[in-house]
Amino acid sequence: MASAAQARTGGVAQAARELADGVLARDRRAIARAISQVEDATPIGRALLDGLFPHAGAAHRLGVTGPPGSGKSTLVNALAQLLRRRDARVAVLAVDPTSPFTGGAILGDRVRMPRAAGDEGFFVRSMASRGSVGGVSAATYEASEILAAAGFDWILIETVGVGQSELEIVELADSVLLVLVPESGDAVQVMKAGIMEIADLFVINKYDREGGDRLRRDISVAMELSDWRRPGGWLPPVHTTVARDDRGVDELLQAIDRHRDWLHQDPARWQEVRQTKLRRRMRVLLNRALLDRAWRAAQIEARLEADLPRIAARDVSPYAWIESVLEA
Amino acid sequence: MASAAQARTGGVAQAARELADGVLARDRRAIARAISQVEDATPIGRALLDGLFPHAGAAHRLGVTGPPGSGKSTLVNALAQLLRRRDARVAVLAVDPTSPFTGGAILGDRVRMPRAAGDEGFFVRSMASRGSVGGVSAATYEASEILAAAGFDWILIETVGVGQSELEIVELADSVLLVLVPESGDAVQVMKAGIMEIADLFVINKYDREGGDRLRRDISVAMELSDWRRPGGWLPPVHTTVARDDRGVDELLQAIDRHRDWLHQDPARWQEVRQTKLRRRMRVLLNRALLDRAWRAAQIEARLEADLPRIAARDVSPYAWIESVLEA
Repeated sequence: MASAAQARTGGVAQAARELADGVLARDRRAIARAISQVEDATPIGRALLDGLFPHAGAAHRLGVTGPPGSGKSTLVNALAQLLRRRDARVAVLAVDPTSPFTGGAILGDRVRMPRAAGDEGFFVRSMASRGSVGGVSAATYEASEILAAAGFDWILIETVGVGQSELEIVELADSVLLVLVPESGDAVQVMKAGIMEIADLFVINKYDREGGDRLRRDISVAMELSDWRRPGGWLPPVHTTVARDDRGVDELLQAIDRHRDWLHQDPARWQEVRQTKLRRRMRVLLNRALLDRAWRAAQIEARLEADLPRIAARDVSPYAWIESVLEA
Repeated sequence: MASAAQARTGGVAQAARELADGVLARDRRAIARAISQVEDATPIGRALLDGLFPHAGAAHRLGVTGPPGSGKSTLVNALAQLLRRRDARVAVLAVDPTSPFTGGAILGDRVRMPRAAGDEGFFVRSMASRGSVGGVSAATYEASEILAAAGFDWILIETVGVGQSELEIVELADSVLLVLVPESGDAVQVMKAGIMEIADLFVINKYDREGGDRLRRDISVAMELSDWRRPGGWLPPVHTTVARDDRGVDELLQAIDRHRDWLHQDPARWQEVRQTKLRRRMRVLLNRALLDRAWRAAQIEARLEADLPRIAARDVSPYAWIESVLEA
């Protein structure tokens, strides 16, 4: 006789199998529901990922990042349209920052890419970046796995901002495109943001505005001076676009193609690149799982609420409190 | 007879006590060494923080954040000079982004604030933001505790970027100043970055450049429309500066003073604000400790290296692997 727990597990496994079948059959509603499951970190989501894992190898993941106002969404849309004209199946994951107060995404699908509607080979999804540890990276990576299993050839992952979490795009994407604008300042300021090293390709968007040419020269010089070549010999090119008018986007896509080809040219290099990214990704996924388990096992939430007033009053040191939790 | 472990613990405790005495005596070299200990997360650092905790209550922590190139360093320097003229003791913590490849900070103390040299009431320190979980927040918070215990009246914490990690400034700082520039785009783009909600004060720096007035109006309108008032009734003001020429900085500092006064006006509100920030901070500190312990206990590093090739070859699912680690 099956126990209640076994029945529950069985139910989860079956629901996950059905959802996985839907994803593999490229059913849009199944894909959307599958992404919601991994976003909410449900047991069905976890089982689903296990089932889809062997099928998620083929897509090329392009990460697009840069400061707010640099026109990333417009550029991603323009690239997606070009890829669609080649008959490639394209998915867009747009990681929206989460409001630290409401917990919700600030932008939703509604304001994004109206052209996705009605096109079976084009899928768009906004994801909230959560405040949680590894939240951006884990859920976005998992969503990209689902999309890869659903047979999308290209997955464009757009993230807003230039902070620490944006470095996670390196783990998610095969190619990283850094979008700047003429007003992004000189190359030293770009380097200060810590984002120059993550780019496989640079693009200066809104290039019709003043200062673009200077920035382009600055970046090129900075790269040569600092020997900015990636392991294996890739030197990130600097492209220029006016995405709103589709100017320069074709050339940019050709450069992205070249980076993809370069990655696959040498099987040993490709394996090393993938393994390096996977190592970082595994850390993020594992850490999330470890914390999740620890918080539940030690009932940390309740403990913290009970002890917080004494820590706030500086009667108990945070470090002594942490030690007491670690012992428990 | 003391065991080797006890002797080691005794040595750590004594070293921490000596360093704590140096910090409380406001010895600059002791302060610098103490910050290095917490940056490196050493046992001495942890013991030190425990000892300094009761002494770290008084300082006002001002967080300064905003996109790269907005002139945060210049503004922070100008504010620090003004505070020094009041005879307030001022410390600056500049969180520099860490290179994801070399692991080092991209900028160092060298390029920052030459005026700190020779002034006993002015202390400047750059911190690398690490890639680790809660790295920015934990080490920077701990450094600010040391500086508060060392009797600094103001601690200015400058962080680069507008990504998720920058939201952590909310936990670190009593007042958060968001620095924008005329080119930051319209208010919708600023909101997209998810940073508008974290600001207690806005400043548009480089206000002599085109577009500043429009941005100022946009933000004011957006705040009124969305009822951007903080719990307790604080409505973030929008100031304008040209920090390079010291223009508007005095008025900005007066606004920061007003926010500080407002925080302390109502003891119940002050307690609630501090407790909310502390709750988030405790989560970060605890998570770091939990992960640190788990990785060491389960020898995860070695396990990951051994199994990575099979995961990369998609022979083993990442989720199955994580389950196997959690079991161990």
